[in-house]
Amino acid sequence: MNKVYVIGMGPGAYEQMTVKAVRTLEKCDVIVGYTVYIELLKEYFPDKRYLTTSMRQEAARCRMAFEEAAKGAVTAMVCSGDAGIYGMAGLMYEIGEEYPEVAIEVIPGVTAALGGSAVLGAAVGHDVSLISLSDLLTPWELIEERLRCAAKADFVICLYNPSSRKRSTYLAKACEIMLEYKAEDTVCGIVKNIAREGETMQTLTLKELKETTVDMFSTVFIGNKQTKVIREKMVTPRGYRI
Amino acid sequence: MNKVYVIGMGPGAYEQMTVKAVRTLEKCDVIVGYTVYIELLKEYFPDKRYLTTSMRQEAARCRMAFEEAAKGAVTAMVCSGDAGIYGMAGLMYEIGEEYPEVAIEVIPGVTAALGGSAVLGAAVGHDVSLISLSDLLTPWELIEERLRCAAKADFVICLYNPSSRKRSTYLAKACEIMLEYKAEDTVCGIVKNIAREGETMQTLTLKELKETTVDMFSTVFIGNKQTKVIREKMVTPRGYRI
Repeated sequence: MNKVYVIGMGPGAYEQMTVKAVRTLEKCDVIVGYTVYIELLKEYFPDKRYLTTSMRQEAARCRMAFEEAAKGAVTAMVCSGDAGIYGMAGLMYEIGEEYPEVAIEVIPGVTAALGGSAVLGAAVGHDVSLISLSDLLTPWELIEERLRCAAKADFVICLYNPSSRKRSTYLAKACEIMLEYKAEDTVCGIVKNIAREGETMQTLTLKELKETTVDMFSTVFIGNKQTKVIREKMVTPRGYRI
Repeated sequence: MNKVYVIGMGPGAYEQMTVKAVRTLEKCDVIVGYTVYIELLKEYFPDKRYLTTSMRQEAARCRMAFEEAAKGAVTAMVCSGDAGIYGMAGLMYEIGEEYPEVAIEVIPGVTAALGGSAVLGAAVGHDVSLISLSDLLTPWELIEERLRCAAKADFVICLYNPSSRKRSTYLAKACEIMLEYKAEDTVCGIVKNIAREGETMQTLTLKELKETTVDMFSTVFIGNKQTKVIREKMVTPRGYRI
């Protein structure tokens, strides 16, 4: 049966991929993805046919992958981070309704919540909520409700898409909601360019985070009541007796 | 400086590890971990010195790793899934206070929420809360509060440690809380033995999940309002227009 793989590349490039992702890409004829990620791959998989679309062309990109697979090419759709979380796996299944003759296999990858947590030390050590601040596809009211509920129940919270040119005030708005439930000195962290050139991290308090501007390459972490700073890292204990 | 790595192995064995995890294990002299995971590794990294402790010996296991690293051995502490989420990275930083001369580096891995989501198709396609039902280290009241808040805000929910001999009724209790906020026909999924021998998956409704018994090798997924079944898989759309 013709097949398309949906592959999570992890947060960086080659080293952050799983062995299974690498082996699958090696056997593919065609690799489809967003331009930025495709450029990262070309160095390691030079003999492939690459197809790209720009941002906001997600459905077209999926159809492109299915068309190739339907013609018999072993095809991969690549996503940054995981294939599922804020990735393309869901849309591939939806568009796949038009291509019943093409099988779909999803290969997971390290998402920014995990990659960023490791850079920060152990930011995400316990129950966690992942919330995207992008309201392109989700109403802001629902995002606010999720922020509120996650803060109220003292989850560690990891914010994806914390900022963009059009949404420069969203992180501050999110922090204000957090501050209704979480203390001002709650330990927070920012990681930029996870596992890529220019990777940086910092820990700060929730109060400071509210005053901080981040860019679209950043992932933001807000600790729970137990989260602390050890060796200048952000550490959420699981509760073991030491 | 002497160094200890905390490495997430991913949900299966070799193929689900990242390239970085593999390369780091290759250069280690000593690998420390829980017996079950150590057995999985021996086949792929035969020339290492392996040290294990049984369950519930987590702090002792961490000290074992630091002692080796302090003596100069390049040492890895391995965790199933990710190193951070319900892993050992947090405890390693805490115990590391006793060993300031040993550096710590955390290498993330694919956690069960991602690995299981891929087996189910695209279970986790949007904002998600990860909640462990184990009350060994967390009061049950806090677990209930997190279940309630995550259900109220219509998160996709991924349940870790959904059952054990002593906690056989916990999943049903969790489902009851879910049903206060989520519809009876909410799409749910169970994955057992992710990426290992005997891997199985099934989709079912929340009402059915409440009547279902799972074992300790299972990860449970509860969808949001948009989650649907496509090709007998559990798919949470991100909201793209098709």
